[in-house]
Amino acid sequence: MELKVYADRMSQPSRAVIIFCKVNGIKFEEIKVDLSKRQQLSAEFKEINPMRQVPTIVDGRFKLFESHAILIYLASAFPGVADHWYPADVTRRAKIHSVLDWHHSNLRWGAATFIINTVLGAALGLPMKPQVAAEAEKILSSSLSKIESIWLKGNGRFLLGGLQPSIADLSLVCEIMQLELLDEKDRSRVLGPHKKVQQWIEDTRNATKPHFDEAHNIFYKAKTKFQVQRTLQANSEREESSIRKALPSKM
Amino acid sequence: MELKVYADRMSQPSRAVIIFCKVNGIKFEEIKVDLSKRQQLSAEFKEINPMRQVPTIVDGRFKLFESHAILIYLASAFPGVADHWYPADVTRRAKIHSVLDWHHSNLRWGAATFIINTVLGAALGLPMKPQVAAEAEKILSSSLSKIESIWLKGNGRFLLGGLQPSIADLSLVCEIMQLELLDEKDRSRVLGPHKKVQQWIEDTRNATKPHFDEAHNIFYKAKTKFQVQRTLQANSEREESSIRKALPSKM
Repeated sequence: MELKVYADRMSQPSRAVIIFCKVNGIKFEEIKVDLSKRQQLSAEFKEINPMRQVPTIVDGRFKLFESHAILIYLASAFPGVADHWYPADVTRRAKIHSVLDWHHSNLRWGAATFIINTVLGAALGLPMKPQVAAEAEKILSSSLSKIESIWLKGNGRFLLGGLQPSIADLSLVCEIMQLELLDEKDRSRVLGPHKKVQQWIEDTRNATKPHFDEAHNIFYKAKTKFQVQRTLQANSEREESSIRKALPSKM
Repeated sequence: MELKVYADRMSQPSRAVIIFCKVNGIKFEEIKVDLSKRQQLSAEFKEINPMRQVPTIVDGRFKLFESHAILIYLASAFPGVADHWYPADVTRRAKIHSVLDWHHSNLRWGAATFIINTVLGAALGLPMKPQVAAEAEKILSSSLSKIESIWLKGNGRFLLGGLQPSIADLSLVCEIMQLELLDEKDRSRVLGPHKKVQQWIEDTRNATKPHFDEAHNIFYKAKTKFQVQRTLQANSEREESSIRKALPSKM
């Protein structure tokens, strides 16, 4: 029975798992769990993952969720995955675990909270909290600085001085790709100062092409849609403001 | 050269690493990094861990931080660690990774944020945010429910139906032990409904004795100190209130 990957390509860890499978020639059936339609909450999906999260995989009778655990499992259980993705050497492997654990409470926390309280919240009609967004931006910026000064230290193009990418590169880069959804001003402010991070994203994209862009296609379309929405909203606000100025004041 | 463990026993992941070493007969030198004195920010410690967090280990020339990564490394690199702590079987190992990853964004996030914004913040003189504490309590309670209904499902006494503990049991139980610092009212409200979690804590403590209590000793003393502080504060507030009542009102 073929591996099943339950995913929504708008979710960054879903994309990481899909890209990993494609790059490593792991055959799988992709089953979309549309988060915007809250399909992860269905009774059907609860049977597959009681935590109701994507990505989730089903490999025969074995079910697994949490993207880092999935990436490690795929690299360990499927033949033909090159060692650089998840090295057999115990110290190199330990360093990759260290990056992945750090990711949870730093980069992911900052990026996901910032995106939800800016662009995604607006698109989904959720209440946004500017104070929470401001605090998340600090964690996000500090995380990007630490990636540059600590994890990208060394001669290699990838994390931990690697000459080829590991599952940590894939996971963290997919997370940072979420920033593409921001409006240009916010994105430049957050990502602009981190040239080394920008180069590393490009290197990871090149090392996994054409699958990287293919997995991000839906996401790129959403980015364009959000941009159009913002432009329309800005125009309508500008128009409203001109009408108000043209009308005699009642004050 | 002996393994060095940089730790503060007030930190839950530090205790997990210390207990793991002791239970498995791994010899180590414990070096205290006193978080209350902000020793993790010293230039000396930055050389050991640029992220300035405990626990951190140094094994010969190899440095590692993030407690989950450390526990996996110790279980893999040191001889004589029983298989149940971190099974060699790829599917059992994957499930442990899944619990550990889930821990970061759920139990840890809820518990640590709640404790900081209630008892620890008060003890350290930090500004507390009741709204943040209330949101964290929801995540914490939901995490405890999920531990009972999902991770503790099965016949075994430990997570994932295990008959003996894994590194995931140790990590999550040490996290929940932080709730001991709360005042009795808060602790009962949060932990009271979760009888299965309470039994599991007891089982993990028994499976790792006497090291579990030995590693928690400083922590138990802090708990008593916090209780005394709260009683003194409550008494002084009561006294102040009686004096105010006894004095004639100036209004």
